[in-house]
Amino acid sequence: MFQRAELDPFMDEEEYERREPALRTALVQRQYELLKKRDRAVLIVVAGVDGAGKGSAINLLNEWMDPRHIRTLAFGEPTADEAQRPAMWRYWNALPALGQAGIVFGSWYAPLFKEAARKRPDMDHIEAMAAEIRRFEAMLASERVRIVKLWYHLSRAAQVARIDAQLADPGTAWRVSEADLKVRKKFDRLRAAGQIVLEATHAGHAPWHVVPSADPRLRAVETASATLEALAGPLPAPARPAARPARRVGHGGTRLEPPPGGGKLDEDDYEKRLASLQAQLSAHVRRKRFGERSLVLVFEGVDAAGKGGAIRRVSHALDVRDFEIVPISAPSDEELAHPYLWRFWRRLPLHGRVSIFDRSWYGRVLVERVESLIPSATWLRAYGEINDFEEQLRRSGAVVLKFWLSISRDEQLRRFRERRDSPFKSFKLTADDWRNRRKWDDYMLAAREMLARTDTAHAPWVVVATDDKRTARIKVLEHIVKALDDAR
Amino acid sequence: MFQRAELDPFMDEEEYERREPALRTALVQRQYELLKKRDRAVLIVVAGVDGAGKGSAINLLNEWMDPRHIRTLAFGEPTADEAQRPAMWRYWNALPALGQAGIVFGSWYAPLFKEAARKRPDMDHIEAMAAEIRRFEAMLASERVRIVKLWYHLSRAAQVARIDAQLADPGTAWRVSEADLKVRKKFDRLRAAGQIVLEATHAGHAPWHVVPSADPRLRAVETASATLEALAGPLPAPARPAARPARRVGHGGTRLEPPPGGGKLDEDDYEKRLASLQAQLSAHVRRKRFGERSLVLVFEGVDAAGKGGAIRRVSHALDVRDFEIVPISAPSDEELAHPYLWRFWRRLPLHGRVSIFDRSWYGRVLVERVESLIPSATWLRAYGEINDFEEQLRRSGAVVLKFWLSISRDEQLRRFRERRDSPFKSFKLTADDWRNRRKWDDYMLAAREMLARTDTAHAPWVVVATDDKRTARIKVLEHIVKALDDAR
Repeated sequence: MFQRAELDPFMDEEEYERREPALRTALVQRQYELLKKRDRAVLIVVAGVDGAGKGSAINLLNEWMDPRHIRTLAFGEPTADEAQRPAMWRYWNALPALGQAGIVFGSWYAPLFKEAARKRPDMDHIEAMAAEIRRFEAMLASERVRIVKLWYHLSRAAQVARIDAQLADPGTAWRVSEADLKVRKKFDRLRAAGQIVLEATHAGHAPWHVVPSADPRLRAVETASATLEALAGPLPAPARPAARPARRVGHGGTRLEPPPGGGKLDEDDYEKRLASLQAQLSAHVRRKRFGERSLVLVFEGVDAAGKGGAIRRVSHALDVRDFEIVPISAPSDEELAHPYLWRFWRRLPLHGRVSIFDRSWYGRVLVERVESLIPSATWLRAYGEINDFEEQLRRSGAVVLKFWLSISRDEQLRRFRERRDSPFKSFKLTADDWRNRRKWDDYMLAAREMLARTDTAHAPWVVVATDDKRTARIKVLEHIVKALDDAR
Repeated sequence: MFQRAELDPFMDEEEYERREPALRTALVQRQYELLKKRDRAVLIVVAGVDGAGKGSAINLLNEWMDPRHIRTLAFGEPTADEAQRPAMWRYWNALPALGQAGIVFGSWYAPLFKEAARKRPDMDHIEAMAAEIRRFEAMLASERVRIVKLWYHLSRAAQVARIDAQLADPGTAWRVSEADLKVRKKFDRLRAAGQIVLEATHAGHAPWHVVPSADPRLRAVETASATLEALAGPLPAPARPAARPARRVGHGGTRLEPPPGGGKLDEDDYEKRLASLQAQLSAHVRRKRFGERSLVLVFEGVDAAGKGGAIRRVSHALDVRDFEIVPISAPSDEELAHPYLWRFWRRLPLHGRVSIFDRSWYGRVLVERVESLIPSATWLRAYGEINDFEEQLRRSGAVVLKFWLSISRDEQLRRFRERRDSPFKSFKLTADDWRNRRKWDDYMLAAREMLARTDTAHAPWVVVATDDKRTARIKVLEHIVKALDDAR
């Protein structure tokens, strides 16, 4: 895979000067077409051996293209705030919109490459990391992000010669970094690591190109050609990688509609238990330990199931500086121009904080499925994408809890009427709500499948019957407090 | 100013129940009108004595309004990443768009109130902080942000009684914070501080309302009424506060068009000096000290003045992880829905990093002025707003340098023709460029006034003649290196 690059091929000046104008013109033209068609976002991942000219390649793309529509997304060590979110958070945040392009440097490959370059790499860990990347890139490809990955490579002799030449000239010696110098000693190991990484993560929808880097002219031409391909080539259908195994917790046979006439909690009892649970929740969040954790709560359920009321009983236990309620409705244009999960990633809490989602990423397998807003392949793949997302959340220290508030059809009707007749609650009731009610069975089917497929040990579902609001609110708080107890 | 609130007025239940439905209905209706008309963004600032029910007031607004279009913006101690930017950065980032509303808790008043509540407050410092806030809020008001500031207040006796009652009940005792308890001892000092703050920062376009807080019903009604006023009342014309005094550096008589036939730098000499300066810049940025600083570079000049080329000579000296080039062109819809400086605030560097603006916030007093895109009052106030902005940048540790690249009219014409005839540079030349060229004298006038009014000690302008590109690039680098030398 590196044979050609290690032959250090070159391009003579004449040929380069013949090809350069055409490449530059094409790059800018394709960029404008992309901007007009908005049929994809483009990510150019730049990786490879140090001292092979990655920086120059990035500079070249920035110079040859219209800089207003291509952005360099370069990542070093995570900042303090970044380190409190899942490792992928910063990449999600930086994803270009449809019509835009980004050059990624210091990408999601950095930890994988680092592990692979160790003396005794942990191959299980490498396999798990590579699988996560495969799923991530397949998801991006499904969401119209065209990924091209460039690996800059050259022979050991050429790398050493290049660095020596730079060192010999005071005009360039300062460009040589410690990483560049280390390559000399570790070339074989780095090459082996590159091989592992490229083999484990090459895919038709996110291909690796090995760019021979000994000759600046050939490097420039191949960089530009690969970028052109990403800007204008066909959008390949992503192969769907296997889902990450996740421990399921059950809910296969869960009854989603509460039996009629469940017990009611009387007001005194309710107030007492509510206060006690709120005090416990408050204490948890103020505890020093919570500074290394965060809490992500998801509330789902049909209209009028009591999401807002349950959320208020949680949020009233918290300092207003410590939580954010994120109401989810139809996506904005900007959100539609990004992969589906993007808008949720942006609202993840820092450590020590709570994000409460009033509806959530599950919209994809509920309303978007039932209303046929997306093809079935899209919601079918969402289960795995969501499990992955929540698993990353969990790994970053978040406690993730998901509530399905379950109301009976009769009780929903009663509450709809109440809203309709209240001057200040009628805004909560729209024609959509009545329409959704008529699709009750479809929603129940979708919910049951959602529960069966996304009820994981790392992010469990809790089904709460809400015909009696008081009982429901107590149950919600009990589960949160218990989850925080367990997470200590 | 606190007399009425300290009488602890109350509202009886009957009146409250009569008024609540109307208030709630009106709040939601005004919210939807706001969303439709998009004639303003709304900020409700919540402040006041601890233990007066600020949190409850925020919860109330969230419950009474449609939560999709009002967001609680609550700030505690700055996070690690926030602390590397100017103190106002996080508030700028959170500003709601036109049609949206935000409730601000832990606002830009926190440091002012803290200083005012000290035993021996530094009144000069207080005056300077208050003046900064007055300018900030006047600027927001000019940019259609309607600000209403609520100060929650009650008598000392009522505060003590309220806290004691909460403490006595195990169901509410956990709600009492340390800050609540401290009020008992420091009530007089806190009241005096409140008085200082409110008097120094009350303005017709950003009024303070003192909300009597002993009685939850009255508190709710007055909170809602003030919010209604902000959502739908007339947009008052802001009074323009005096500009912050800034040490000017001159440039009054600067010649903006270089004399014909300036000296040319030969290639060898150029390459040598370029490499040496790039090495020095690179060393500066990698130095540990730079971890407490950042660098903000602004490049302005007429079309084809050589901004891109000069920027590349700077960026090529830097690690791609350490800088961002921000090309500025016409604002997006989202940017237009926010105050003018918003899009620049979002791109400020962390410590240890460099932001390079290819055109900048000076567009307001250049292209927007010359093309009459805004009324003259708007660009006239921009000088002061910009000086303020840059002063805050400087205070946060940034070195701010601004380059006016100055080209002769003949040389511009030569470069335009060169671009026109190049297949891959012609995209850089648009009809606008030719049109702007015809307004040469207008641009020169605007540039001269800009230099005279924004050339400050904290963010100086450097005028660089660019008919000879090499000389210009060397000059730019020399100034940057010198500024970093001086900033050590």
